[in-house]
Amino acid sequence: MTIFRKPLRVHFSPDKSLHESLRNILGFYPTNISLYKSAFRHSSVATLIKDGIKDSNERLEFLGDSVIGTVVADYLFKKFPFKDEGFLTKMRSKMVSRNQHNHIALKLGLNKLIAANNDRNSHPSSINGDAYEALIGAIYLDKGFDFAQHFMLTRIFNVHIDMDELETKEVDFKSKFIEWAQKEKKDFRFETIKDGNSSNDKQFLLKLMVDDKVMGTAQHFSKKRAEQLAAEEACGSLEL
Amino acid sequence: MTIFRKPLRVHFSPDKSLHESLRNILGFYPTNISLYKSAFRHSSVATLIKDGIKDSNERLEFLGDSVIGTVVADYLFKKFPFKDEGFLTKMRSKMVSRNQHNHIALKLGLNKLIAANNDRNSHPSSINGDAYEALIGAIYLDKGFDFAQHFMLTRIFNVHIDMDELETKEVDFKSKFIEWAQKEKKDFRFETIKDGNSSNDKQFLLKLMVDDKVMGTAQHFSKKRAEQLAAEEACGSLEL
Repeated sequence: MTIFRKPLRVHFSPDKSLHESLRNILGFYPTNISLYKSAFRHSSVATLIKDGIKDSNERLEFLGDSVIGTVVADYLFKKFPFKDEGFLTKMRSKMVSRNQHNHIALKLGLNKLIAANNDRNSHPSSINGDAYEALIGAIYLDKGFDFAQHFMLTRIFNVHIDMDELETKEVDFKSKFIEWAQKEKKDFRFETIKDGNSSNDKQFLLKLMVDDKVMGTAQHFSKKRAEQLAAEEACGSLEL
Repeated sequence: MTIFRKPLRVHFSPDKSLHESLRNILGFYPTNISLYKSAFRHSSVATLIKDGIKDSNERLEFLGDSVIGTVVADYLFKKFPFKDEGFLTKMRSKMVSRNQHNHIALKLGLNKLIAANNDRNSHPSSINGDAYEALIGAIYLDKGFDFAQHFMLTRIFNVHIDMDELETKEVDFKSKFIEWAQKEKKDFRFETIKDGNSSNDKQFLLKLMVDDKVMGTAQHFSKKRAEQLAAEEACGSLEL
């Protein structure tokens, strides 16, 4: 069993309880505690430190997002020596999705450390995932790349990520498309051109319309699958 | 002056001349030379090593692209302590653009090392930039993150990148939009609604039409600037 020695600075720190919480979550004592305090500070409680710049976690999130991308790229590169870059790119986008980051944040218990104002309804759904990215940014600055990488591999990838599930999971293009349409306030509808229940070949033919423009067409024995395929075409031309 | 000692393995290597070329370009002798050979192998001359997977530089490019993103993020984070993440994101996209990578590749002289078939016309314009990304991937695997970072800072950022120019350079949204329209085979036109030469307030008002749909509108004293602004709006909704 590894013995975690408590550094002297922790005994005399005014942030002793944060030190201990982080030690429990991360498995190590932070060196520069102020980085971690920033990582958990949502912009709703941040203060202006200079013209137009707040001491929130958004800059650390920018940095951490990159570090995570590299650690994931390295991990996939070595785990799948005989897969091409198209596969690696697809897998990475699943591993670094907003959902995945929120999931990891909750598994680590980061939500208990986030400082934000009480009106939680006004916060984006990504508040936990964003804090996770910022935390990785903080670890990277505090301890270096190799340390951050080791932390992610041993405490996150090996514990909280089900690679087999991710590998077989299809990207849900319909949800992706609907998310875009709602954000952009576009009207859309799936129009059935041929109904598989009554047609000779039992296939559904449908088109996806956005503001009276055809964005995708697809044919399949399953109506659900046809909708997915039409949405995939739309996502492609929208470069989503 | 630093003395570069030539490792024994170089003397006896069948790739002695590649070792020496890399030593001149990079400032160090590679440890695992096969990584660098892959980095300079364009897919046009690669051979199949297993079902559907070639020994080209595309996997290394995937990895190197991420490493570059992180090194750039760290560099900007520290160089601009009082800029928000929006600024950092914008600067990063300028620093890692295809143009920038091609420019760096040529400055380093990587084009002389790239193995590709003779029909250069059939190669994408990014062949040099892609090799640069793959090279960073190779250095990262060969020597680790800290080494790759140090190499980029001392041999590239401090020498071949003019940060002041990048900072003031506007993103050319009109070109970006036109590139998209040509790729997607869309008809588009800028329609002048109000001509600044004849109007009272001397401003141009115009709209950017794609297939009879308004994708952006803008008003400005300069017609050129108004076009840029309308294109920026279109790029925004297309998420370019």
